[in-house]
Amino acid sequence: MTVSVDDVQRAVQRIAGRVRRTPVIEVAPGVTFKLELLQHTGSFKPRGAFNRLLTAKENGELGGPGIVAASGGNHGLAAAYAARELGVPARIFVPETTPAAKLGKLQTLGADIVQVGNEYAEAYQAALQAQSESGALLVHAYDQPEVVAGQGTVGLEILEQVGDFDTVLVAVGGGGLIGGIATAIGDNAQVVGVEPALAPTMNRALHAEQPTDGPVGGVAADSLGARRLGDLAFHAVQAHHVRSVLVDDESIVAARKQLWTTYHLATEHGGAVAWAALASGAYEPADGERVVVVVCGANTDPGTLT
Amino acid sequence: MTVSVDDVQRAVQRIAGRVRRTPVIEVAPGVTFKLELLQHTGSFKPRGAFNRLLTAKENGELGGPGIVAASGGNHGLAAAYAARELGVPARIFVPETTPAAKLGKLQTLGADIVQVGNEYAEAYQAALQAQSESGALLVHAYDQPEVVAGQGTVGLEILEQVGDFDTVLVAVGGGGLIGGIATAIGDNAQVVGVEPALAPTMNRALHAEQPTDGPVGGVAADSLGARRLGDLAFHAVQAHHVRSVLVDDESIVAARKQLWTTYHLATEHGGAVAWAALASGAYEPADGERVVVVVCGANTDPGTLT
Repeated sequence: MTVSVDDVQRAVQRIAGRVRRTPVIEVAPGVTFKLELLQHTGSFKPRGAFNRLLTAKENGELGGPGIVAASGGNHGLAAAYAARELGVPARIFVPETTPAAKLGKLQTLGADIVQVGNEYAEAYQAALQAQSESGALLVHAYDQPEVVAGQGTVGLEILEQVGDFDTVLVAVGGGGLIGGIATAIGDNAQVVGVEPALAPTMNRALHAEQPTDGPVGGVAADSLGARRLGDLAFHAVQAHHVRSVLVDDESIVAARKQLWTTYHLATEHGGAVAWAALASGAYEPADGERVVVVVCGANTDPGTLT
Repeated sequence: MTVSVDDVQRAVQRIAGRVRRTPVIEVAPGVTFKLELLQHTGSFKPRGAFNRLLTAKENGELGGPGIVAASGGNHGLAAAYAARELGVPARIFVPETTPAAKLGKLQTLGADIVQVGNEYAEAYQAALQAQSESGALLVHAYDQPEVVAGQGTVGLEILEQVGDFDTVLVAVGGGGLIGGIATAIGDNAQVVGVEPALAPTMNRALHAEQPTDGPVGGVAADSLGARRLGDLAFHAVQAHHVRSVLVDDESIVAARKQLWTTYHLATEHGGAVAWAALASGAYEPADGERVVVVVCGANTDPGTLT
């Protein structure tokens, strides 16, 4: 199963008016930020969630039981937000490691929250079981075609908003965003997936030539803490020759501080990972190379920024 | 002395490449934020500072003594930043009430900092004296033509970036921003100046038909704490029929929290004043009225956002 650019274009139409068209800003000659942290609920995730829910609604598959989702936080917020906007109940399974800031937001969105285990995979198993018992719609955090296509709308917006560019840097967790953006960008630019060295799902999949399980750790694990890359993302990053860059935790922490002090953007660690590649030198652009950095998550305790 | 839209257009050319073209985002149907808090140093002030310094440089008036400026914080940061970028020394006089967050940033910009008195007016007198002794270039916080014209470039960008709109909400302190934006917008839209009820320089000037001194107070005094409206701003707001709206401190505090929790923007109190008018209902748009809100300052301790 793959996702096509047509699927992404249909997602644009489907979710129009439900998500914000987030702006871009050129912060230095040839360096542009896509400010997806300004999306509803503070991350790109509502794009995929709305595309999944609205597709199900069109097909008569979104009913009284509502939805279930498993999430390290951002996907849960997005799924709960989309469910509330569409008037269906949401039951969200989250790891016990989920930061208090995200739990509080989930509660204000009216979701039924269940805390399970220490990582995403355990919350996901619990969500699967709840789905089979209740008949609710499962909204996957990254590995469903509607979700990948929805996240890909970020890429189509970049193509419209940024005149000429060579490269897009995107953080990778389960791969919904990188898979969608790689599909949307196609041959128009080089897409680079940036991952914490302590949770390198895409890097591992590219080496193994298939997604494989691995350990999850590091400062960005609350948002990029998937155990393996999604199959849809894997096919997309292979098909579109996505490059892999790893960044260490020290670089992520420094990049997040710099995003605040120099660029006035309050991001979570996962939201600073793509910028960390450029700021640390882990990714070195060629002379004159024009780079777009997707800044993708704002769900943080702002008291930890300084 | 007045500032014309031609002056603003020349400022656009003069400061191009020195300031960021900050983006806009439509956050609800008919409500658009101009994200000027993402400007260098976290406020709109570098626009005016660069226009003042570069004009002086063109005229051979920017020499070895560099610049002096007085500021509640944001203007000082901007003047110090512009001086550093242009390679001249900066001596910045600030009130002793200046928040530690802003003092620390001034230091990192390499400025010579002098803390004087409790409000802007006292720091300004000290700067005037230093200017006459040293021959440095005085960069006024708001009441110089080059400064007003520079701030007005925000207005020209709004005209280019936002297709159709009826109203622009702008915070007012000494009036550099409102004067510049009113000049730039002209008859294209209604400009509304929003002020803290505890520091209403423009409202008082409009009632007295001239700028008059008054008390300075409230949560936003560190950035909007001028004692009176500038003469240039007064002429501009009169000529362009700028409307006045006042907001109380409670509304400013609530608007700032909402900008963070709902819109993921970390602002100082002054940066939330324009939004406070809309969020509190102090400004009630007509049915279908399309409003642009200038979000103009990010210099805050992020730990105080939640």
